[in-house]
Amino acid sequence: MEKIKQNSYVLFYFNHSKKWLVKLSKKESLHTHIGVIKHADAIGKEYGARLTTNKDKYVYLLKPTIYDYIMKIQHGTQIVYPKDIGYIIARAGIANGQKILEIGTGSGSLTSFVASVVKPRGHVYTFDVDDNFMKIAEKNIKKAGVSKYVTQQNLDLKTAKTLPVENIDAALIDLGDPWTVIPIVRKMLKGSGAVFAICPTMNQLEKLTMALTENEFTDIECTEHILRTIDAREGKTRHSFQGIGHTTYLCYARKAYFGSPNLKKTHASE
Amino acid sequence: MEKIKQNSYVLFYFNHSKKWLVKLSKKESLHTHIGVIKHADAIGKEYGARLTTNKDKYVYLLKPTIYDYIMKIQHGTQIVYPKDIGYIIARAGIANGQKILEIGTGSGSLTSFVASVVKPRGHVYTFDVDDNFMKIAEKNIKKAGVSKYVTQQNLDLKTAKTLPVENIDAALIDLGDPWTVIPIVRKMLKGSGAVFAICPTMNQLEKLTMALTENEFTDIECTEHILRTIDAREGKTRHSFQGIGHTTYLCYARKAYFGSPNLKKTHASE
Amino acid sequence: MEKIKQNSYVLFYFNHSKKWLVKLSKKESLHTHIGVIKHADAIGKEYGARLTTNKDKYVYLLKPTIYDYIMKIQHGTQIVYPKDIGYIIARAGIANGQKILEIGTGSGSLTSFVASVVKPRGHVYTFDVDDNFMKIAEKNIKKAGVSKYVTQQNLDLKTAKTLPVENIDAALIDLGDPWTVIPIVRKMLKGSGAVFAICPTMNQLEKLTMALTENEFTDIECTEHILRTIDAREGKTRHSFQGIGHTTYLCYARKAYFGSPNLKKTHASE
Amino acid sequence: MEKIKQNSYVLFYFNHSKKWLVKLSKKESLHTHIGVIKHADAIGKEYGARLTTNKDKYVYLLKPTIYDYIMKIQHGTQIVYPKDIGYIIARAGIANGQKILEIGTGSGSLTSFVASVVKPRGHVYTFDVDDNFMKIAEKNIKKAGVSKYVTQQNLDLKTAKTLPVENIDAALIDLGDPWTVIPIVRKMLKGSGAVFAICPTMNQLEKLTMALTENEFTDIECTEHILRTIDAREGKTRHSFQGIGHTTYLCYARKAYFGSPNLKKTHASE
Repeated sequence: MEKIKQNSYVLFYFNHSKKWLVKLSKKESLHTHIGVIKHADAIGKEYGARLTTNKDKYVYLLKPTIYDYIMKIQHGTQIVYPKDIGYIIARAGIANGQKILEIGTGSGSLTSFVASVVKPRGHVYTFDVDDNFMKIAEKNIKKAGVSKYVTQQNLDLKTAKTLPVENIDAALIDLGDPWTVIPIVRKMLKGSGAVFAICPTMNQLEKLTMALTENEFTDIECTEHILRTIDAREGKTRHSFQGIGHTTYLCYARKAYFGSPNLKKTHASE
Repeated sequence: MEKIKQNSYVLFYFNHSKKWLVKLSKKESLHTHIGVIKHADAIGKEYGARLTTNKDKYVYLLKPTIYDYIMKIQHGTQIVYPKDIGYIIARAGIANGQKILEIGTGSGSLTSFVASVVKPRGHVYTFDVDDNFMKIAEKNIKKAGVSKYVTQQNLDLKTAKTLPVENIDAALIDLGDPWTVIPIVRKMLKGSGAVFAICPTMNQLEKLTMALTENEFTDIECTEHILRTIDAREGKTRHSFQGIGHTTYLCYARKAYFGSPNLKKTHASE
Repeated sequence: MEKIKQNSYVLFYFNHSKKWLVKLSKKESLHTHIGVIKHADAIGKEYGARLTTNKDKYVYLLKPTIYDYIMKIQHGTQIVYPKDIGYIIARAGIANGQKILEIGTGSGSLTSFVASVVKPRGHVYTFDVDDNFMKIAEKNIKKAGVSKYVTQQNLDLKTAKTLPVENIDAALIDLGDPWTVIPIVRKMLKGSGAVFAICPTMNQLEKLTMALTENEFTDIECTEHILRTIDAREGKTRHSFQGIGHTTYLCYARKAYFGSPNLKKTHASE
Repeated sequence: MEKIKQNSYVLFYFNHSKKWLVKLSKKESLHTHIGVIKHADAIGKEYGARLTTNKDKYVYLLKPTIYDYIMKIQHGTQIVYPKDIGYIIARAGIANGQKILEIGTGSGSLTSFVASVVKPRGHVYTFDVDDNFMKIAEKNIKKAGVSKYVTQQNLDLKTAKTLPVENIDAALIDLGDPWTVIPIVRKMLKGSGAVFAICPTMNQLEKLTMALTENEFTDIECTEHILRTIDAREGKTRHSFQGIGHTTYLCYARKAYFGSPNLKKTHASE
């Protein structure tokens, strides 16, 4: 039985829309609409136990998963949502031990999740050009406990003269103009390696798909993922009234060689 | 550069609906509607290279990912689809090093995927009661290269007298009557550990949700996941005409203690 | 060119979420967050013209359609949404001249719409048991300008001894327990006539479908209708971030005779 | 009780995917996979009655609604589906007595449906430039029984010198390049009248939306409509495995005057 300790992260869970991710510090309290929760009351309890606030509301002490860290991340920019991250991992077959490239670190949500899958033998190399976002991402990655498996760098791959990493299994792109990095991404990817791009607009999908074809990628697939929640209650089960709209479209492809790879290799530094 | 070898698995990729997962054997050929492909022609090539069939069609030699193994799995029963697997992993925060319980091995698709994420330090314990399915699953898990991280057993948890495994991070249930195993699953789970059930019908969601509440689970969430593909082409981008219907609903929850966990512990062996 | 007159209804349209349906009265003003609009300024203008509020915002003077009346209806109960009404009309083939039965008048939104289609030769007979709702519905039907084509009555069809109307083309049911009225609805329907029920839950669909089969209905179809809005803007077209959730499921069927209709007729008063 | 007669149209209904719309002719028979149905056996029966084929299958004799005519229409081109037609009618508030313009008659499915709503006092004016489609549409409109309420003409509105109709309530556009007719459509529309365009691609939505804004339309709304069917069966209710993909996007807007309509009128013939 795992006891909750001082300095542990805990998710104080009241319901789906009211939950707080906190780092326990025995002299602190969390003040919420549903009452005050003293951190000290959580220390020594088992995960899953519940506390009662001073307003007589129950709060459960959940051990945060990588999902909870992502949903409670500090974000200066749009996060990548778990529904989309899940498909990226499943479709690209991201698995333990892989070497992953990420262009556009953003708030570090995708970075953290992917690192939690590929560690301890795999690694994520992530690049961004915005120092502010990079600082936020660094904190978030640290909070998620995966810093050791992530190399973060301020680098603009559109103008990079040398390849910062090679022989990668999969590249994840979260840029406004993902098509601009396809030629350099291609050079870093293993043969038949995967590219996944986060594309909030249909126009991005269209331009990116064209660039992928020109750059000899195959198995191109553009998708969107709609998550609907269901209120399952005895005798009155139905979809939730509250809807979930658009987050992003996704574009996936795999590196191929349209001509003879051996011939090309005498001409290209690839 | 990784060369393709004799006995390697390769995905011969023509398009989204025509692709074949083969184990290379230099004297064999694959006969398809788009022509004959000699295995020998693939050996020694780089992944991503393409061959030309005797009907002048291009086929790409892709390195199979865990996704490809799942989609090409031999299945005696319904598989769990990547779109659903992805959400399970993302929502439950399944990560490297975890100990996972699966009830209902089925064809081993979910087993294989989860093992590829939790390995090498984590492990999947999977139980089924149908010997035929178990043999199919065993082959599929082996083909996916993760047998080392999976313990498979013919065991009916509904009537089990001892707990086959304890202190698990997450339990995945793929049974027609998932509510029947909730009490025993609870005993095997860590505090605040996750349950995910594959529920093809709304009635299952309803019964399971009631059982989860009675058994002191919280953070209950029922969802469905709609994957839509988009045909992105210059000047005529739109959703695909071909639709994707229903696969399954998913039900997620986390183990909590509704009363005082310390008190209860003097009464229960939990 | 049609001029806007005193006592006309006008939709003051600012944007999709800020629009007001008013009956013009030359001495009145509408006070809104985007400024004050004097009714008198609208009188004498053409529909489509715009006014400027005292906060320099443009407001368009649109002629309300039946859609606008429904969306701006006073409702004591859940309304039937245009996306669902549209499918009911299209699937049941509701057309000019038909005789329609409605059980559960609610706020009169479906009543009003259907009347606007079947008039002037068709008619809607609508029944409810709640006097408060009936008063609200009466006002709404009047505002929509279709009172002449609607007969409204307080009547509980579950216990009705005589048939209030016969030989109807289609029956629309909006009750919590729609299955209870299927036998009497059957008696009022023409052969092969349509039933449409508004079913907010899956459980209702299930019970109703069973009752429809027992009562010799065929062509049974249960559906749900998801409306997604798209933000089409140059170079950045995508689905709207804001989602649309669940309104209701719909159940449709047509009256058939499972045995010989002539034989049965000697036994039944049908 | 309405008896089925010689020369009547009847829908022979076996199930959702096997149904036939026939015009009865007493000497003919329908040969199907589920057996032979003699037209003569249907004559004299009541609508809703069932026949037994020579292979012992039941077939119901349903009175075709406008929905059945549309779904069984002969089509040289893509039809507009009932789910989309329904929303057009509901959103634009198409109602009895209106004067409707249609550009792009296609197979006449939308034409027929709208005519069935606006008749007997309303009218549909429909234009196309393809004589072959126009002949097919003419037959379909006739079969649906609404020819009297439709004026069909071969006319290219992009180059039309005079307005073929004026003061219309709503314009429905089904062209590959709907933006080209917006200026002339504007001239034919009443103030605050509605435009609805059938746009199969996102690119069309984008270009059309820009054209609508330039031509002083407001209340612009782009949508897509997803219809999902549900298999409601005791104890195992779920969405259908078979999916429904993309048909078309829809674009709606209303004619406004961005400047002063009175001033403009001295310069334009509008």
